[in-house]
Amino acid sequence: MTPERFAKIKEVLNRRQPDLTVITDNVHKSRNLSAIVRTCDAVGISHVHSADPDDGFGTYHGTAKGSHRWVNVSIHEGVEKPIQMLQEQGFKVYAATLTDRAVDYRTLDYTQPCAILLGAEKFGVSDTAADLADEHIIVPMMGMVESFNVSVAGAIILAEAQRQRSLANMYSESRMDPQEYQKTLFEWAQP
Amino acid sequence: MTPERFAKIKEVLNRRQPDLTVITDNVHKSRNLSAIVRTCDAVGISHVHSADPDDGFGTYHGTAKGSHRWVNVSIHEGVEKPIQMLQEQGFKVYAATLTDRAVDYRTLDYTQPCAILLGAEKFGVSDTAADLADEHIIVPMMGMVESFNVSVAGAIILAEAQRQRSLANMYSESRMDPQEYQKTLFEWAQP
Ligand SMILES: C[S@@+](CC[C@H](N)C(=O)[O-])C[C@H]1O[C@@H](n2cnc3c(N)ncnc32)[C@H](O)[C@@H]1O
Ligand SMILES: C[S@@+](CC[C@H](N)C(=O)[O-])C[C@H]1O[C@@H](n2cnc3c(N)ncnc32)[C@H](O)[C@@H]1O
Repeated sequence: MTPERFAKIKEVLNRRQPDLTVITDNVHKSRNLSAIVRTCDAVGISHVHSADPDDGFGTYHGTAKGSHRWVNVSIHEGVEKPIQMLQEQGFKVYAATLTDRAVDYRTLDYTQPCAILLGAEKFGVSDTAADLADEHIIVPMMGMVESFNVSVAGAIILAEAQRQRSLANMYSESRMDPQEYQKTLFEWAQP
Repeated sequence: MTPERFAKIKEVLNRRQPDLTVITDNVHKSRNLSAIVRTCDAVGISHVHSADPDDGFGTYHGTAKGSHRWVNVSIHEGVEKPIQMLQEQGFKVYAATLTDRAVDYRTLDYTQPCAILLGAEKFGVSDTAADLADEHIIVPMMGMVESFNVSVAGAIILAEAQRQRSLANMYSESRMDPQEYQKTLFEWAQP
């Protein structure tokens, strides 16, 4: 490990956002899951929750550019458990879904603890998840096609979260639990 | 054609942005090209320029959700021609590329005529395109991985363009050439 590499790892850990996460609800194409994990790494998310990824995450690396090494993915059976677990920890769950209840994604506050919930390629967010979610959000669309690709919708929302958290100086010093920080630093520094 | 469908088509045409476009420089995976075209439709882009798509656009529909019907894709040999053609028409070319010259994508003005140039999956924006471009833009990254998936990077930038153009009321009445509008309306209204 070069000193530059070690410095880079610390810089990245100092920017991790323990109170920002993503839940995928039945998203099953591994290339979409990969692209989502890769975007999560880029905005500082260290933990993703994936409910019922179907194909499984086995196949799922192709386009992740090694981001699995830097982002923990917990697999869940059913979407209720991760939603309820995060809500108990004080997270708001924002479900990206095209319902009448949905508000423009830019109007919400992403500086508070929150989880962005993304739905399945074909069928969108499940009724269970939509009911449990604290808010429904929509990315406005001006064209003929009714929805974005799920990894694209996720990225647009996460870029807004990143923007708000940058403005709030949430990337300027470490926000991780110190023990977790040391543990991760040790793991990542392994060759 | 139901009256609702006809009204929807007119609404979409009224939001098309003739002075916003995308150039892909050697992007060759059809699923990336598809996702880019789908996002273009959603932000009101009616014309995309694709230089050297390799695999060709033949295979390229899977995940486009039919967006090829609503977005014209011009294929070019080499990236110089579309860049120079657009610059002659008064467009600024913003190349999304991780160079020292690059500025944060949010600092630029997307309400003026502009083309977002996206680079190849493996090798990024070509030197030719980087030299010809008016500006280099970067989407800040806080993680270990060095780049976004190309369709993700494109979507984040286009969402910012859409935001700026919404604020500038550029989606509120038709901006298309009236003849082009009528021609497109006629084509789209075909079953
Ligand atoms: C391809 S879309 C699913 C479309 C599905 N037919 C539906 O009606 O929900 C896959 C996922 O991407 C996200 N998504 C796509 N476009 C979106 C938009 N405009 N606003 C919010 N979320 C969106 C949602 O999480 C959605 O469940
Ligand atoms: C996977 S990247 C190419 C990475 C390539 N190794 C390089 O160094 O350019 C494919 C394209 O996505 C766009 N892109 C990806 N991440 C970006 C970022 N953070 N800022 C600007 N553009 C980005 C660029 O257009 C890039 O050419």
